[in-house]
Amino acid sequence: MTFVVHGELSVKTSRNTEVIDITNLVRNWIESKEIKDGILAISSEHTTAGVTINEGENRLMEDIGNHLKKLVPEGAGYQHDKVDNNAHAHIATTLIGASCTLSILSGSLGLGTWQRILFVEFDGPRQRRVRCAFIGTRMSSS
Amino acid sequence: MTFVVHGELSVKTSRNTEVIDITNLVRNWIESKEIKDGILAISSEHTTAGVTINEGENRLMEDIGNHLKKLVPEGAGYQHDKVDNNAHAHIATTLIGASCTLSILSGSLGLGTWQRILFVEFDGPRQRRVRCAFIGTRMSSS
Amino acid sequence: MTFVVHGELSVKTSRNTEVIDITNLVRNWIESKEIKDGILAISSEHTTAGVTINEGENRLMEDIGNHLKKLVPEGAGYQHDKVDNNAHAHIATTLIGASCTLSILSGSLGLGTWQRILFVEFDGPRQRRVRCAFIGTRMSSS
Repeated sequence: MTFVVHGELSVKTSRNTEVIDITNLVRNWIESKEIKDGILAISSEHTTAGVTINEGENRLMEDIGNHLKKLVPEGAGYQHDKVDNNAHAHIATTLIGASCTLSILSGSLGLGTWQRILFVEFDGPRQRRVRCAFIGTRMSSS
Repeated sequence: MTFVVHGELSVKTSRNTEVIDITNLVRNWIESKEIKDGILAISSEHTTAGVTINEGENRLMEDIGNHLKKLVPEGAGYQHDKVDNNAHAHIATTLIGASCTLSILSGSLGLGTWQRILFVEFDGPRQRRVRCAFIGTRMSSS
Repeated sequence: MTFVVHGELSVKTSRNTEVIDITNLVRNWIESKEIKDGILAISSEHTTAGVTINEGENRLMEDIGNHLKKLVPEGAGYQHDKVDNNAHAHIATTLIGASCTLSILSGSLGLGTWQRILFVEFDGPRQRRVRCAFIGTRMSSS
């Protein structure tokens, strides 16, 4: 039997640019389902905030946000700024990426020792949503 | 039953650097199959054009292409330019990414309000192809 | 029947910044299983090395590493450097991405003509691991 589970997680950001470790949120969601072996697709539902995998060390999370702002500075003559003053946040999101895919084995997230799932806000503070979609096998089915 | 569907979509670009909203193309493909719940992997088949998720606003799509060209300027002493004069297009593609993964729920693409699937050309104009692979459940099977 | 297969591949890097074509490694792994049609998620298990899809031309692979180091220069005042002297390697990894997703059709990797799977090291030389997770149908089951 193909087991498909969808979920939506809430993430509240508190600053304009902010990297938040959402690994425990995702883990709690996985544990609340009968997820066993398969693939998990995680995606931001937004165009000015993305999702990436990296270390959850506090200073590094600051560095990631700050460096992306340097690579895509605010108000650098973007045409979209005439529509909505946040072109830099959109472009930075395309660099970080909106989605990532992880394996799940016996109900455990396939992350390396230092890897964490990071939500990257570029246009906060806002209430945000992250979508999870699992496909694979069910705990009870084996 | 595991339901797997593969498809290939054609995208024609008309400029050297160009961002094209391919959401409707992907949606039409999904609707032409009996796709219900699962995961969709979308990938560019090319090394100088990628796929990302962001807003499909015209000026923003221009900004994305232009800013990537600033981050990876043409002819900046790349060694690959001795082979083929487009190293910048390859490197920009690694930043945008070649693939993304989305959830599908009841036959609907799991996109947020402003999210669109964008094809990002860095070495056009060319005839391009995008690969879709769905895995999940079938409409008629429920 | 849902067929899920997990695997872990070893990659040895020999320089600090290095791009390695791992397509054959992944192909050998696929061929050693009964993988038929579905989706393959490939991810680096590390926070200072990523995975991307691009051309495996030697000079281009050098260019990718070099340009990423230009975009995220070593020691540019990152706070994480006080913890561990490699913030640039982490940030570059968030730009390249840790995971990618490919389709598999009749046991063949869904790559375009010039596409190869590239492992991108930013903090080597090290012994590294790449995780593969396939979900789909089984060769013998059809």
